[in-house]
Amino acid sequence: MKKSLGKGTHAMPTPVWLVGSYDQAGKPNLATVAWGGVCSSDPAAVTISLRKSRYSYDSILRHGAFTVNIPSQAFAVAADYAGIASGKNEDKFAQAGLTAVKSDLVDAPYVAEFPLVIECRLLQTVEIGVHTQFIGEIVDVKADESVLDANGLPDPAKVLPLIYSPTNRTYYGLGEAVGKGFDIGKELMK
Amino acid sequence: MKKSLGKGTHAMPTPVWLVGSYDQAGKPNLATVAWGGVCSSDPAAVTISLRKSRYSYDSILRHGAFTVNIPSQAFAVAADYAGIASGKNEDKFAQAGLTAVKSDLVDAPYVAEFPLVIECRLLQTVEIGVHTQFIGEIVDVKADESVLDANGLPDPAKVLPLIYSPTNRTYYGLGEAVGKGFDIGKELMK
Repeated sequence: MKKSLGKGTHAMPTPVWLVGSYDQAGKPNLATVAWGGVCSSDPAAVTISLRKSRYSYDSILRHGAFTVNIPSQAFAVAADYAGIASGKNEDKFAQAGLTAVKSDLVDAPYVAEFPLVIECRLLQTVEIGVHTQFIGEIVDVKADESVLDANGLPDPAKVLPLIYSPTNRTYYGLGEAVGKGFDIGKELMK
Repeated sequence: MKKSLGKGTHAMPTPVWLVGSYDQAGKPNLATVAWGGVCSSDPAAVTISLRKSRYSYDSILRHGAFTVNIPSQAFAVAADYAGIASGKNEDKFAQAGLTAVKSDLVDAPYVAEFPLVIECRLLQTVEIGVHTQFIGEIVDVKADESVLDANGLPDPAKVLPLIYSPTNRTYYGLGEAVGKGFDIGKELMK
């Protein structure tokens, strides 16, 4: 017998992604989001949701682009800071000691120090109550060579992404590998 | 200098959610998804993306409802199985030894054995290339008492959700707590 908890956003895991964009004056900014995820394989696309009050809201619409910057665990403080401060009042890159790199592909900056970044062209927005969902087509993924596996793809055990839990407002690290996808379930096949 | 990896869906972390729905004959079915996330706080809402070829696609549209069932790490094999098999040919609940409970609130079944389930009313669909995104308003969240924290909310360290990495098709467990949100970043505030 389960206990009813009501209508909260008590889902897990949620990501910790820093969304990069340029404001009206061309200043690079970051917004930390946990509301988001991959939404399509072809075109490869991700979503992030922002309230209209977030400073990045107009920036993304104006430039039609954003980046998703995936911090490793070592950048937890910077990630949290970028979710508390507003780019309206602060230069978050400078304050967090991060370097903004201008993307060659989309009109948005990415974080030099983070191991994995995704450059997105704004495809579509969807209004959902207090949040607007931005759907971004992935134009390129860039990673530090040091986090790549033998197949040349990002290795989670090297990227060490953060996981956010909205229920207790806590950041977690990645745990141990549990098994291979499209593999361990085969034992239950008829 | 980062290495360009092209247009892949190399994002992380992504969730491991089993989407519950009834098919045309009223048989409960499950589909494992990693493409999804929270998309709005008010109304509380989540998204999941499915290809049109997935058996659950018509089920969700027909019944206007789905559930998001969050397996603990102990159910990794069942979670992977539900992502490999098709409900067209198999009774996934029976095959995985899981119990379908009819939701009182929406026309979809949830998994009795999983610690955390989210009941959703279909709000909207969004076409994004090969995937359709289903946006579900959270009508209720239900959890086992054993996974609740002192505030009566799901404790990730008790739920032990799985994390999926699309880059290497591997399931991971949740790691250690790294810090509190809206807190550890304060030290960088001006």
